[in-house]
This record gives sequence, C-alpha cells and structure tokens, in this order.
Amino acid sequence: MAQSTVKLASGYEMPLVGFGLWKVPAAQAADTVYNAIKAGYRCFDGAYDYQNEKEAGEGVRRAIKEGLVRREDIFVMTKLWNNYHRREHALAMAKAQNEAWGLGYIDLYLIHFPVALKYIETEKRRYPAWWMDDAGTVEPDNVPIRETWEALETVVDMGVAHAIGVSNFQAQSLYDIQRYARHPISALQIEHHPYLAQLDLVALAQEHNIVVTAYSSFGPQSFMELPGIFSKRAKDTEPLLETAVVKSLAGKHGKTPAQILLRWATQRGVAVIPKSNNAARLAQNLDVLSFDLTLDELESISGLDKGLRFNDPGFYLPNYPLRIFA
Amino acid sequence: MAQSTVKLASGYEMPLVGFGLWKVPAAQAADTVYNAIKAGYRCFDGAYDYQNEKEAGEGVRRAIKEGLVRREDIFVMTKLWNNYHRREHALAMAKAQNEAWGLGYIDLYLIHFPVALKYIETEKRRYPAWWMDDAGTVEPDNVPIRETWEALETVVDMGVAHAIGVSNFQAQSLYDIQRYARHPISALQIEHHPYLAQLDLVALAQEHNIVVTAYSSFGPQSFMELPGIFSKRAKDTEPLLETAVVKSLAGKHGKTPAQILLRWATQRGVAVIPKSNNAARLAQNLDVLSFDLTLDELESISGLDKGLRFNDPGFYLPNYPLRIFA
Repeated sequence: MAQSTVKLASGYEMPLVGFGLWKVPAAQAADTVYNAIKAGYRCFDGAYDYQNEKEAGEGVRRAIKEGLVRREDIFVMTKLWNNYHRREHALAMAKAQNEAWGLGYIDLYLIHFPVALKYIETEKRRYPAWWMDDAGTVEPDNVPIRETWEALETVVDMGVAHAIGVSNFQAQSLYDIQRYARHPISALQIEHHPYLAQLDLVALAQEHNIVVTAYSSFGPQSFMELPGIFSKRAKDTEPLLETAVVKSLAGKHGKTPAQILLRWATQRGVAVIPKSNNAARLAQNLDVLSFDLTLDELESISGLDKGLRFNDPGFYLPNYPLRIFA
Repeated sequence: MAQSTVKLASGYEMPLVGFGLWKVPAAQAADTVYNAIKAGYRCFDGAYDYQNEKEAGEGVRRAIKEGLVRREDIFVMTKLWNNYHRREHALAMAKAQNEAWGLGYIDLYLIHFPVALKYIETEKRRYPAWWMDDAGTVEPDNVPIRETWEALETVVDMGVAHAIGVSNFQAQSLYDIQRYARHPISALQIEHHPYLAQLDLVALAQEHNIVVTAYSSFGPQSFMELPGIFSKRAKDTEPLLETAVVKSLAGKHGKTPAQILLRWATQRGVAVIPKSNNAARLAQNLDVLSFDLTLDELESISGLDKGLRFNDPGFYLPNYPLRIFA
C-alpha cells in the first residue's frame, strides 16, 4: 500500500502516517510491528523511553527477511531520553539505540524533552517511572540544549541517523536552535489533538520547514491506561472520540471518529502515529489520507481547543513539577 | 512613602510597584519621572526601545539634586533591544544606556525579547517601527540567547548593572539559561493581566526565585493608542477595567478597577509598573498594597483568563510573524 510522504529539511521523505510504539509491551512489540507492516505501515515511532526498541527492530527485520519490505521502505524515528543529554551519553545512546533496532541507521532521531536529568546507568532505569526515582525525586542536570543538539548533529555526521529533530519543544527553543544549527531541525513531535491544537506552534514549524508529528491524536484516550496522576486529567475529560462535533463528522463522511481526528491532522500536513492492537482499527487508522474534510469542518474540530495538555510534567511530577510548557 | 519590596536572587531589593515608561514621550519624560518621584514612586521601568532613557534619567537626577530622594532609594530597570544581542553590541548598549540614565549603575537589566534581529546603527533606529524597517521587513540574526545572557553577566561583572533578567521568555528558555548561568536570573517581565494570566509561568518563576513583573496590567487598554495592527486585538476586546468581575470588586472594596487589577498581581508577589499622566491615578496606582482581596476574589479575577496576548509579534508582524510565544 502506497503511503503519502512529506519531505524533511534533511532531504529524506517521511510517511504522513506511522505506528506509535508508546505503551506497546516489549513482549508483543516484534509481532505488533511485523503485523503493522503487513497491514501497510511503513513508519514507526519509538523511543528509548518505551523500552521496546530491540523487539520492534526484530519485527522490522522479520518483515525484511520475508521479503515484505526493504529497509529503505521503512522509516524509523526514535528519541533520546532525558538522562542522556550530555554529549558523551547522547552519542553512546544513539549508537546503542541504532544497534537495538538493528537496521543500519535511524531515519529520524529526536530529543525527547527539553529537560536534562541526571545520568543513570541504563541497567538501573525502570519503566514506567521514567521521570523520577522510587522516592519521587526528579533530578535536573546542567546540560544546555545546545550541547545535546550538537551531539545529535554528530550522530548525523557519523551516519547513525539520517535526520534529527526535537519533541515537546516550544517556539523559543526552536528559534534558539536555529541560531546555531549545522543540520536543520527536520521535525517536531508534539502533543496535538483538538483539545490542545497549538495552531501557532504548528504554523511556526511549518513556516520554518519543520515537519510536525502529532502524538496522542485521540487526546485523553492515550492517557487513560496510565497509573495515578498520569491519567487524572484524561479521566476528568470528555473523550474526544465521543464529542458531538467528531461523531457528527464521522457519520457524515462514513468514517470512524478516530479517522476524523487523524484526518484533521494529516490534511493540515501534520503526521500522525496512532497505535492499535486491533486489526480492523489498524487498517482504519492507516486510511486517513483518502478523504477530505472541508475547511469549515477542520475549523469546527479546531474549535474544541481548550489548551488542555495531558502529557504535562508540570502537573504529573508533584514533588518537582517541571513546568516546561509555561 | 514607604514601598514594599521583594528580594531579587542577586541580593538586591526591588519595589513591588513601579512606574512604566513605555509610551511616555521623550519631551515629557523628565517631568513625568520627577512628578512620579514626588508622588512616591521609587521604581522605574524603561527600555532602549522606549527612546526616553536620557530624559527619564534627568527626572531622577533632578529629584536627587533637590534632595527628594537618594540614588539608593531609586530602582531603575531597563532593557536591551533586539538589534543588539551580539556580545559586543550588548556590552556597548548597556554602557550607553547606563550613561543615558546618568545614575552610576542600572539596578536591573533585562533582555527585552528572546529574538535577535540584525544590528542597526542607533542613529538609524526609528520609533515606533521597532521590529521592522520601512518596507515591513523583519531581519533575524543568528545570535544564540546564551551569547546575550553571558554578555549581560559581564555587564554585572563590570558593575554597570546590579542584577539581570529577561522579558517575554517562555519556560523552556528560562530552564535553558539556568543550565549555564553564572549570575542568577533575578527577574522575568511578562505581559500579565487576567486575560493572559500565565499562572503556570508565574508559578515556575516564583519556584525558581525569579521575581515576576507584570506589564500591561490593564490588558487591552495599554495597546489602544498604538497604530494599526498593533492595537487590533485590543480594540476587539472588552476593556478589563469594565468587566463585571472587576467593577464589582472595585465597588465592594471602595477601590478603582485599576487598583483591583494591580492588587490581583501584587498580592500574588507579582510586581507592577503602571503608567498614568493623571495625578490622581498616579497616586491610586501606587496605593495597591494596603488592602487585600480574598482567595476567592483573586480566583474570580483569574477566571477571566482566555490566553489572550496583545503584545504578540506572531500577530503584528504580518510579513514575517515571529511566533515566539507558541
């Protein structure tokens, strides 16, 4: 199945629809990725944080070995976690993550969050308590963004990644990197759904030739399964998939509410990375380029915006709130 | 008249209420400042951008000469403009601005905006077209924030300024400076009124011992007199001073709506810098520490928040919108 792509500032093409590996258990990741490729997915969004890169890579390698796809048909993006922002750690992690995927190179490597935390040995790292230790302590480290960005440029120079970008960055952070970047910021991954439309940030990125990828396209739904305070805002919010606006457009276009939400992004040039364990939804989520919403319909969805962020470390780290989005 | 002060991270005290010099014509600035000192003001907020520093300094010097105040009773904050972010320009401007004031030192020197524009000779600079040339062209320059911040640290080392800070910075910009700062970020000046409460940003700053100063405390009113697109959003918005919430609290407390808005800030530890040409209002604006609003009243004012920014170069620079707040 052919995929529409967008061209990155690095010169490479990136599919507009990918499969998100957040919360995919390691034990299922190989099969999940393999089946997604069978269903037509060519783009995968991973992260060191998700602790399933090796297994996801196995799924891709199995599909390649069976002749379903070639390496160059696949686009892998993954991310550097907060504890590894120092130059030497960033370089080591990029190499280690690339080896975990086992595909020769990473297509797109992102700084996961604009926050450096103290280094911890990879063996000591636990999932999902990824921001803090058992006592709830968050330990920032004094690593400027520039050191980490320049390390990622070296990752490109080494051929380990083809393109680099950032995730969860604000406008001013993008501007500042652009002052000194040797390699362009190819991509920005952000929480983006109608409750948190961030239209100015999307416009900024697109004006500067930075491809935006939306995570958590369905809004609160992505956070419902998380423990404790991580899901509190989601549980207090009406599901986006059940809002009258989205349901009515789904009925009108003969699509699912999920497809409407994904099309709201892709039609505006924003890439999406939905996840599903269900074969039918897997196919539906990929079929979000073949119909169009009207401008009024797009705007009626954007009208749901209320600046509501679910992935907010200023909220879910009560002992040391990292208000990085203020 | 005694002034309540807040302690800056630099160790110096800063008054909670000051007088804002934005839009004070140069020809009136000396008298305005002199009269404000007579009325009890001890803190003045200037900027190279306002093009009235020399005259404002004359007003202070006249008051000192007449024995109304001593230099150490006065707190002067001023700001570095966008065209002078390169180290050599920042150092030269700090010295020139300090000489313009003629008071020996600047109490607090801020980076005005997190945006570097191409250098222009000070003689060629025009007011109020301060972001772009006559053709409407905006010309960014590749100066990282770190270069400018470190120049300001040198300004402190030279004794030209006692403390330094930033204006119009987002959370991530503050975090990044904190990674490498030799001198603390003492202050953050932001647009702050009930329509743009930015409570998370204020909380972040206060948690990190950065004193917040609010500009445009009355919201749209500050922008009504500006030409063209600079005032468009203000003209499309209900005046804050006329909202039912603010008027009703003014009646209840026997204060003016302006005093209610200023107390909403100062009671939360946020400094204010109102301006007035009217002697009665000048005195009223200073009298915003002697009464208290209840917590519910403060929150009812904050409830007017709608994320509405008036000083938005992503909006008022149509040929090259600088979406620095996205």
